[in-house]
Amino acid sequence: MTYCLAIKVREGLLFASDSRTNAGVDQLSTFSKMFTFGTEGQRVFTVLTAGNLATTQAVIGHLQRDIRKGVEPNLNTVETVEDAAHYLGALSREEQAKHSAGKIDTSASFILGGQITGSPPLLCLVYPEGNFICATDETPYLQIGEVKYGKPILDRIIRQDTPLGEAALCALVSMDSTTRSNATVGPPIEVMVYATDQLRLDRHFVFTADDPYLTDLKLAWDMKLKEAFTELRRYSWQPVESRAADQNASQADIAPSVGAKRNR
Amino acid sequence: MTYCLAIKVREGLLFASDSRTNAGVDQLSTFSKMFTFGTEGQRVFTVLTAGNLATTQAVIGHLQRDIRKGVEPNLNTVETVEDAAHYLGALSREEQAKHSAGKIDTSASFILGGQITGSPPLLCLVYPEGNFICATDETPYLQIGEVKYGKPILDRIIRQDTPLGEAALCALVSMDSTTRSNATVGPPIEVMVYATDQLRLDRHFVFTADDPYLTDLKLAWDMKLKEAFTELRRYSWQPVESRAADQNASQADIAPSVGAKRNR
Repeated sequence: MTYCLAIKVREGLLFASDSRTNAGVDQLSTFSKMFTFGTEGQRVFTVLTAGNLATTQAVIGHLQRDIRKGVEPNLNTVETVEDAAHYLGALSREEQAKHSAGKIDTSASFILGGQITGSPPLLCLVYPEGNFICATDETPYLQIGEVKYGKPILDRIIRQDTPLGEAALCALVSMDSTTRSNATVGPPIEVMVYATDQLRLDRHFVFTADDPYLTDLKLAWDMKLKEAFTELRRYSWQPVESRAADQNASQADIAPSVGAKRNR
Repeated sequence: MTYCLAIKVREGLLFASDSRTNAGVDQLSTFSKMFTFGTEGQRVFTVLTAGNLATTQAVIGHLQRDIRKGVEPNLNTVETVEDAAHYLGALSREEQAKHSAGKIDTSASFILGGQITGSPPLLCLVYPEGNFICATDETPYLQIGEVKYGKPILDRIIRQDTPLGEAALCALVSMDSTTRSNATVGPPIEVMVYATDQLRLDRHFVFTADDPYLTDLKLAWDMKLKEAFTELRRYSWQPVESRAADQNASQADIAPSVGAKRNR
């Protein structure tokens, strides 16, 4: 499995990916799922991948080959980030189709984000079908792979005015919730921080499992969540007889009856 | 969709369920998914349901009818909670099979927990196939329906020695994370608190959307999570050139190259 996410805030773009792949539970491997393209000062793209590894590797290889051989379109010549997403989607469909005759699911999803001189940064999620959606001010993050465990913290923290560094930290916390609950998502965790108009991808970070900052963050977040939990106001959880005078309490059944119950 | 969970700790059993059902996004309804059976002082069962609503209603109706008509086995005569789970699984398979010819997914899952005089409490998850697993000291909680969003907090908080009231609070928090991230899971939230050897189900609580305690809990948890997040130690997220002297920092790419990157 995989967990990748990307965030588009006013300050720029943020990408994060895990590095664990599995073909059955007895075949775990480590592969990077973050790839960069572009020319400093002119255009930059970061691509995150999820799904069938043969498909994603073929697509990334195809993107690289098209640039090397000058095939049109390629990521060095597309006019917009949307055009790049459209092109990536077409390559993905093509690669999936080559091997889709068997029983194996060859589908793959991608997040592509970046900036081309003269236009604002853009973030797109390319579906297995080749079509895509872009992040907006209202929905500033996109996820692919095992997306559910890490979604609640993003929903709470990420807004379009969240500073880029805070978005990066939130991505790490989201990744931590996912790696704790799903054994097929794991380190190294890669993070790419891109500030608008920088047109340079020099803030790429790789956190291995024993990275001191990541280890400390996991412990600190766990401790703080537990602290936050202990600080919540307790409910009485007493039978309704004992709470007759408690106006705030919920009403409850007095005793069980066969298959019946009374709610307020 | 649905989210139900149950927890087995040393002090007893805890059940929680949402009440939203949907048949397509334009057909949202409210149905309780928590049902109780038994005879005070002798045996008590709580059943939570997920999946096809026609199937779960048919199964609950069947359980009630078998008791009323004295058909053997029934929940008033089964010898153990495992026997009850086995019997529930058989009824579920039977009801699913009746209508499985069409294109509709008739499958359903159940959590059944309770206690029969002379034996300890037990908690079982009955799969659509009719087989079941029971909660253990190592895995003290079971979930059905939309299980992922609410799992991280359970993994952090719930242990076999967690007090029953804390388990109930954690279930509400887990439910809150789920209702925030998935629109097809929603209130009223029902909670049943059962202390070992009580053999009575008089702690049944229904929290409606505007319940003052639930509203306060949601706000408090959101605020505390955000506070916890702001208290985390920040990472520099600076390009590697600027961090040459920072021994704790991760190495990063200096500049993007076409499709290539160097990790440490």
